[in-house]
Amino acid sequence: MPTDRLTDLKNRLALVQDLRASAAVLEWDQETYMPPGAAEARAHQLATLKTLAHRRFTDESVGALLDGLDGLVEDEFDRALVRVTRRDFERATKLSADLVARLARAKARALEAWKRARQNDDFAHFAPHLREIVDLSIEQAEALGYERRRYDALLDEYEPEATWAEVDAAFRDLRAELVPIVQALAEADPPDDAFLHRPYDPERQWNLGLDVLRAFGYDFARGRQDRSAHPFSTAFSVDDVRVTTRIAPDFFPTGFFGTLHEGGHALYEQGIDPALDRTPLASGTSLGMHESQSRLWENLVGRSRPFWRWAYPAVQEAFPDALGGVAEEAFYRAINRVQPSLIRVEADEVTYHLHVMLRFEIESALLDGSLDAADVPAAWNAAMEEYLGLTPETDADGCLQDIHWALGAIGYFPTYTLGTLMSVQLFDAAKRDLGDLNGQFERGEFGPLLGWLRAHVHRFGRARSASEILEETTGGPLDAGPWLAYVREKFGAIYEASL
Amino acid sequence: MPTDRLTDLKNRLALVQDLRASAAVLEWDQETYMPPGAAEARAHQLATLKTLAHRRFTDESVGALLDGLDGLVEDEFDRALVRVTRRDFERATKLSADLVARLARAKARALEAWKRARQNDDFAHFAPHLREIVDLSIEQAEALGYERRRYDALLDEYEPEATWAEVDAAFRDLRAELVPIVQALAEADPPDDAFLHRPYDPERQWNLGLDVLRAFGYDFARGRQDRSAHPFSTAFSVDDVRVTTRIAPDFFPTGFFGTLHEGGHALYEQGIDPALDRTPLASGTSLGMHESQSRLWENLVGRSRPFWRWAYPAVQEAFPDALGGVAEEAFYRAINRVQPSLIRVEADEVTYHLHVMLRFEIESALLDGSLDAADVPAAWNAAMEEYLGLTPETDADGCLQDIHWALGAIGYFPTYTLGTLMSVQLFDAAKRDLGDLNGQFERGEFGPLLGWLRAHVHRFGRARSASEILEETTGGPLDAGPWLAYVREKFGAIYEASL
Repeated sequence: MPTDRLTDLKNRLALVQDLRASAAVLEWDQETYMPPGAAEARAHQLATLKTLAHRRFTDESVGALLDGLDGLVEDEFDRALVRVTRRDFERATKLSADLVARLARAKARALEAWKRARQNDDFAHFAPHLREIVDLSIEQAEALGYERRRYDALLDEYEPEATWAEVDAAFRDLRAELVPIVQALAEADPPDDAFLHRPYDPERQWNLGLDVLRAFGYDFARGRQDRSAHPFSTAFSVDDVRVTTRIAPDFFPTGFFGTLHEGGHALYEQGIDPALDRTPLASGTSLGMHESQSRLWENLVGRSRPFWRWAYPAVQEAFPDALGGVAEEAFYRAINRVQPSLIRVEADEVTYHLHVMLRFEIESALLDGSLDAADVPAAWNAAMEEYLGLTPETDADGCLQDIHWALGAIGYFPTYTLGTLMSVQLFDAAKRDLGDLNGQFERGEFGPLLGWLRAHVHRFGRARSASEILEETTGGPLDAGPWLAYVREKFGAIYEASL
Repeated sequence: MPTDRLTDLKNRLALVQDLRASAAVLEWDQETYMPPGAAEARAHQLATLKTLAHRRFTDESVGALLDGLDGLVEDEFDRALVRVTRRDFERATKLSADLVARLARAKARALEAWKRARQNDDFAHFAPHLREIVDLSIEQAEALGYERRRYDALLDEYEPEATWAEVDAAFRDLRAELVPIVQALAEADPPDDAFLHRPYDPERQWNLGLDVLRAFGYDFARGRQDRSAHPFSTAFSVDDVRVTTRIAPDFFPTGFFGTLHEGGHALYEQGIDPALDRTPLASGTSLGMHESQSRLWENLVGRSRPFWRWAYPAVQEAFPDALGGVAEEAFYRAINRVQPSLIRVEADEVTYHLHVMLRFEIESALLDGSLDAADVPAAWNAAMEEYLGLTPETDADGCLQDIHWALGAIGYFPTYTLGTLMSVQLFDAAKRDLGDLNGQFERGEFGPLLGWLRAHVHRFGRARSASEILEETTGGPLDAGPWLAYVREKFGAIYEASL
C-alpha cells in the first residue's frame, strides 16, 4: 500500500529531522551561550547526532520505500517529498563513508589552519590545507557525478538546478555592466557618512532591531534574537526559527542591517507550511532563494527611501547625539554609499558582486586544475585590482578573509549573487501584484509584502524549486536585468549620475 | 580480548551519553530561551533523542559485552563502569517498551492535569491521574523487583542501596527529636526579618550570585548561569555544567540561596574526573549525595556565621537602601529564622524535613494500597497539623504544591533529607581534616573545602556509591546524629534556647 509506505517513510524522515534539528540546537548554543571549555564535548555530541542522522537517512530501507513510492503519490507536497528525498538520498549515498570521514577530518584541520593563517597573515600555512580540500572536493564531485563540469556537482548542493555554465555566463554579462557603473560612481561625489561612525548605544540598537523585526512580521512566539560573534539564522522547526546579531557600538549599519538580513532568512523559514514540518521539505529551496529573502528585507526594503521615511524619526530619536543634526535624506544617502573596499561582508550593494565573481573564478580554476592553491593570493590580488582598483596589503584582508573554503564549501559563493538577482525579480513581481509598496513602507506596513512572499515563496519550502518559483511569479527564468535596472535607478538618483 | 570488548562497550556508551547530553541541552534551552510556540516540536525532538538513547543502551549487544567483561576488568574505574552499567542495563531492560510508553503517556497527562488542578485548586481533577501514576508505579516496581517492599524498587532509582525500612527508621528517629525542637523554637522570640522583604535590585542580586559562585570555585569557563522559572542545574559534560536561578525583586533569599544551592550541585558535576566523561559514571552517585553538595554550600557554608563575616560588607554595600541600617548579626539571624510554613521549597533548614517526611508517608501508603489517591488531601492536612501545627487553606498550598508525583517520581522525596544528613557528616569530616574552616570562610577562602570535596566525593562520580563515600570519609554509615547536633548548636545559639 502506497499510503502505508508513505507513512513509514515520513516517520523515518521525521526521526532524521529531529536529529538534525537537535544538532542545530547544539550549534546555536555553541555560537551563543556555550562556555568555552565545552568545545570538545560539544564536538563529540554533534558528531554523534550527525552520524546517526546520516546513517538513518541513508539506510537502505529509505531507498526501498522511495522505490516503492515512485509514481504512486498524488498529493503535491507528497510528490515533492518523494522527489526531494530521492535527490538527497542519492547525493548522500554516492559518497562513501570513507570519503565523508576524510572530508570531515580535512575540514577540521583546514579550519584550524585557516584561523591561524588569517590571524598571522600567513597564507603559506593554509595553502596545503586548501590543496587538500580542493583534492577532496574533486574526489567528491567525481563521486557525485556531473554532466559538464566538476563545479556543477558541488554547486548542486547549494543551488540545485544551477550549472557552472549558467553562472559563468550570467556573471560575465553582469560584470560587463557593473564595472562601468562602479567606475562612474567612484567619480561622483560620495555622500558623507561620517555620522554613521559615532557611538550608538548598543541597548538601543538592539531594541530598534527587535522593533523592525516585529514590524516586518517576524513572530517572536516562534523565534528569538541573541548575540553571536557572526550573525546567523537557524531553524529547529517551523515553530522555532532564531536569529543572532552582532552590535558594533561605533558603527550603526553593522547591527541594524545584520538584523534585517538574518530576519529576512528567518521570515522565510517561519513562513513554511506547517504541514512540511519534520520533513526534508521544511527549509528554503536553495541558498540563492534564501539569500533573495535576506537581501530583499535588508536592501530592497531596509535601504529604501520609503522605509526611512517611516523609520528615521524613531532612529533619530533613539540616537540624538549621533543623528540629531542629520537630515533624513542625508542619512538615506549615507547608508547607501558605494565604495570599492577589500572585505566582502562590508561591501555595499553594488560592489558586493565583484567580490563574489572573483571567488567564483578562483574556485572554478582550483577545481579544473588550472590554478594551484599556492597561487591563490596572486590570482586574488590581480582580480581585486582589475575589478575594484584595490590591492589588499595583506592576505588576511585578501584571500584569507572568508571561512567558506576552510569549511570545504566550494561552489557556495555564487548563491549570494544569484539570490540578489532573484530578490529584485521577486520584488518587482510583488510590486506588480500589490501596487504602491512605497506608500505602504512609508506607513510602516509590511504585512502585504510578507503575505505575498508567504503565498508565492515561503510556504512551499523545498516543495517548489527556485526556478519554479521564479517562473510562477515572474513568468521567466533567473535574470540579471531587473537588478541592474534597480541599481541604475536607485544609485543614479542618489549620486545624481547617469549610469 | 577484554580490552577490545571494553573499548567496544565504552564506544557504545559514549554514543548513548552523547544522545542523553543532547537531550539535556534541549531541555535546558526549553527552560531558559526557547520561544513558547516551539513546545510541540521540542517534545518530538526530545522523544526521538530519548527513545534512541534507550534503544541503544538496552541493545542486546550491550548485555553481551557486559557478560563478556564480568570479572575480567582490573582498573578501578573500569570495574565501576561495568558494575554501574550492569545495574542500569538491568533496570532499563526489566521494563517493557509497552510499560515505558504507558508511563510516558500517563505522566504527560498527569502533568497537564496537575498544572490545571493546582491553578484552580481542584484536587479532584488531579486525583484520577495520581491514581493512574500510582498504579503504573506499582506495575513498574513489580517489574523491577524488590526484596521487601515495592517502595524499594522505586527508591533505588534515586538512591541506590537505600531501602524503605532504613528511611522509615531514620525518619521516625529524626521526627521524634525534631518536633520538640521546632516547638521550642516556635516558643522563642523570632529574629526580625522584615528587611529581607524589601526591594533588592535584580541586576545586583544577579552579579552578587556570580561573585559568590566564583569565590566557591565554580568554573565559568566550563559553566554559566541563566534565568529560569524553576532553578536547576544540568550537565552536558564535565566541561559544561550549568545552573539557572530565579531572582525575586522584593525578597533577598530566593535568588541568593537558590544560586548557592544550584551552584553546589554544579560544583559536584564539575569535579568529576574527566576520565569518566562520556560514560554513565559521569554524574552524581545518588540524588542524596547530590543534595548533600547543594545543601552543604547553601546552608553549612552560605547560612553560616563565618560566611557572613566575609560576605556581608559587600552585600550591604550592594543594597544600601535595604540593608544600610542592618547589622551583620541581625542579618545572619534573619536568614536563619525558623518558622513552620506551608510550602516545602520556602521552608527553613529545620522544619524542611517535616515536609519531606509527610510526603514519604503518603507515597508509602499510596504504594502499599493503604491510601487511595482521593484521600491524599485529608492525609496531607492531618500530617501538616500534627507536624507543623498548620492546615493549608487550599490544596494548591497543600498536596498540590509539588510537581514530583505528576512527573511519576515516587520515591524521590526522601533523598532531600538523606542528602541533608550526609551534608553534615561530610562537613564534619572535612573540618576534622582541614582544621579551622570558620577562619577560612571569614576570609572568603573556600578552596580547601572544595579541594577536599573533590578528592573525597566529586571525582568518583558514580564509581563509588554514597555509602562507600560515607564510610571512607566518616568511618560509618548514614547517620542523623551529626545533623541534629548541628541544628541544636546553631539554632540554640541564634534563638538563645536550650534545644
